Amino acid sequence: MNKQQIVILGAGYGGLMTALHLQKKLKHHHTDITLVNKHDYHYQTTWLHETAAGTIHHDQTRIPLDEVIDKRRVHLVIDTVKAIQPDEKKVKLANSELTYDILVIALGFETATFGITGLKENAFMISTLNKARLLRQHLSYNFAQYHNEKKKNPARLNIVVGGGGFTGVEFLGELANRIPELCAEYDIDKAKVRVINIEGSPTVLPGFDPDLVEYAMNSLEARGVEFITGALLKECNPDNIVYKKNGMLTQIPTMTTIWAAGVKANPIVEVSGFQTNRGKVEVMEDLRAPGYEDVFVLGDCASIKDPETGQVVAPTAQMAVRQAKVAARNIIKRLKGEEKLEAFVPKTLGTVASLGNDDAIAVILKNWKIFGWKATFMKKMIDNRYLIRLGGWNLLFQKGKFNFFY
Amino acid sequence: MNKQQIVILGAGYGGLMTALHLQKKLKHHHTDITLVNKHDYHYQTTWLHETAAGTIHHDQTRIPLDEVIDKRRVHLVIDTVKAIQPDEKKVKLANSELTYDILVIALGFETATFGITGLKENAFMISTLNKARLLRQHLSYNFAQYHNEKKKNPARLNIVVGGGGFTGVEFLGELANRIPELCAEYDIDKAKVRVINIEGSPTVLPGFDPDLVEYAMNSLEARGVEFITGALLKECNPDNIVYKKNGMLTQIPTMTTIWAAGVKANPIVEVSGFQTNRGKVEVMEDLRAPGYEDVFVLGDCASIKDPETGQVVAPTAQMAVRQAKVAARNIIKRLKGEEKLEAFVPKTLGTVASLGNDDAIAVILKNWKIFGWKATFMKKMIDNRYLIRLGGWNLLFQKGKFNFFY
Repeated sequence: MNKQQIVILGAGYGGLMTALHLQKKLKHHHTDITLVNKHDYHYQTTWLHETAAGTIHHDQTRIPLDEVIDKRRVHLVIDTVKAIQPDEKKVKLANSELTYDILVIALGFETATFGITGLKENAFMISTLNKARLLRQHLSYNFAQYHNEKKKNPARLNIVVGGGGFTGVEFLGELANRIPELCAEYDIDKAKVRVINIEGSPTVLPGFDPDLVEYAMNSLEARGVEFITGALLKECNPDNIVYKKNGMLTQIPTMTTIWAAGVKANPIVEVSGFQTNRGKVEVMEDLRAPGYEDVFVLGDCASIKDPETGQVVAPTAQMAVRQAKVAARNIIKRLKGEEKLEAFVPKTLGTVASLGNDDAIAVILKNWKIFGWKATFMKKMIDNRYLIRLGGWNLLFQKGKFNFFY
Repeated sequence: MNKQQIVILGAGYGGLMTALHLQKKLKHHHTDITLVNKHDYHYQTTWLHETAAGTIHHDQTRIPLDEVIDKRRVHLVIDTVKAIQPDEKKVKLANSELTYDILVIALGFETATFGITGLKENAFMISTLNKARLLRQHLSYNFAQYHNEKKKNPARLNIVVGGGGFTGVEFLGELANRIPELCAEYDIDKAKVRVINIEGSPTVLPGFDPDLVEYAMNSLEARGVEFITGALLKECNPDNIVYKKNGMLTQIPTMTTIWAAGVKANPIVEVSGFQTNRGKVEVMEDLRAPGYEDVFVLGDCASIKDPETGQVVAPTAQMAVRQAKVAARNIIKRLKGEEKLEAFVPKTLGTVASLGNDDAIAVILKNWKIFGWKATFMKKMIDNRYLIRLGGWNLLFQKGKFNFFY
């Protein structure tokens, strides 16, 4: 008997949720499900800014795949995807090769550095668990080093965050709460520490509701964050950055630049022969790649337009999780031989940005604005709800966020 | 009324204990006691190897001077000593100048690097609280960085400890216990980590009882420590060291070299006009500097011979604490105008070397050997006893070591 081979690439929000839906629904089907991932754990990309700032431990942001995957139903391959050959229905991994009948590409993002001088070499990123915990250690290291040098070096205490989008702002919120702890830990006067955000637009969170943006900037400024808006990062060196504002170049001494201003799809997608736009597959409404009826593309690797506005929708965790549900249902339809697949509707339920563990802003259903503890509560509930979906109440109790009333 | 000025330089074991004895005994005397220290805290130098390895937090090893000094009796000056002018009875600080009637010099040690190439620039030391916590962060940083590099760099996981004396061996013991924690924290295979000790003598702890040395080396080897004895460190570079053994040079890739092989007295002593030997004042038996009847020198700055053996005694914390008692009594005699001062008898009650928090070796009263949990218990009791002397039971409960039965 020839079992259908379903191969899922990536155990991020999109890939892992697809695997979990299929493992639940395909109990009596003659299929093999294979999930390929670089690490033996899933991590919550949306929590990495907390790990990076050192406000939560990285083990709270990651979940061993073993704990959520039923190994009797899903075959787990820990390996790196090297190439996708959709015409041969093959995937090359670093250590083996897979053949598929149905493929799900959910390989996530990489940081885009837009060719800014020195950025790739010298800036820190919040894009992976390994990078996030490195940044946490780098921050502590510089604070620890400060009093060991005869000539005190302000570059050790200046922290520059490039980009005031969601990742940048959420990281600033955590950092603002972490700095007083670091100062106490290493006997450093808080007034000597500068946290500087550089953003190209006139405000942070461009496109977000202006009242809430003002709320966010006030909340962060009150905790010592400086905003330099309408400015572009031009250079990132090991001990300084240069930005341009109003045609003028300014240098800031810093050993810690965090680049939070750009992501791109995993570059493997672009070189695999799919029709792409800015490196992403412009998927059909049923989430399949044009021309390949058995390839689904999710999350950061997919480009999806909102049919109402015609705008490309932001590839959030929320989107990826909802795409996974539709993709799983469509895969089952394909297995049953159905021709008509379900369309994914890229509706956003709302957007919440945390500003540290005790403050947040949110827009719900496009016009209900909330901020402060209510938004914080909502953010933590969203995070917790995802954990329940992933691994039930057990996982929630292990990794959940219960510090609601700080 | 002209008050007598007593100035104590340094709040290490010798200086702080002298100040505490005087503050207790000079209640009704017309004296001013001034204690000068670089930091507003005292730290336990004998616990720094634990802070450096990351096995105890640095706040457990330090005690704010405020908490033990009675400010009505002792004037605390946080400043750095720049010069001592014993002929003018003056001390120059970075920000002021003091005049004394009686001076206590207890300025501790610095690391001696013996001109080994690159050691001063590239090696880590365990000599101050600031350096110890930097080393802790450096270790974590390298483990955090390991998986972020495409080409895995063994220099990040090789740790070389130069010197197998007390500091070196005690640090190795802590490190051996810390490595498994670091490996778990950063997903690193413990087999990839090397901890290497380089010691010039044929065994570590030269001069210590051979049975106990064997016990110590077995205990550490069982936890993965490699010993290279009869070898001399020749070079320390940012990413490797070179040692010489049997006339042959060998290189080991490492970004973490800890130099634990030499200390010298604070160099201010040598340039202040005292009669010195290897940078230390060869004090008289009443602990005064020859030629200066109102200057006492304690701890690492003093060179003291055992009258029985004729050997210079090791400047341990134990010695410094006992010297402080004699110095305080002698200061009171001077204030009363007595000519005959008390002689310090450099008798060692015993020596304990910890091998991590769960193992130790000790020789008590020169011939009673103990090891394992008994020696560990004794070491922790000695540490705790010092805390009681310093700040009573309250301080013991705050900072004591109660993990007796790991």
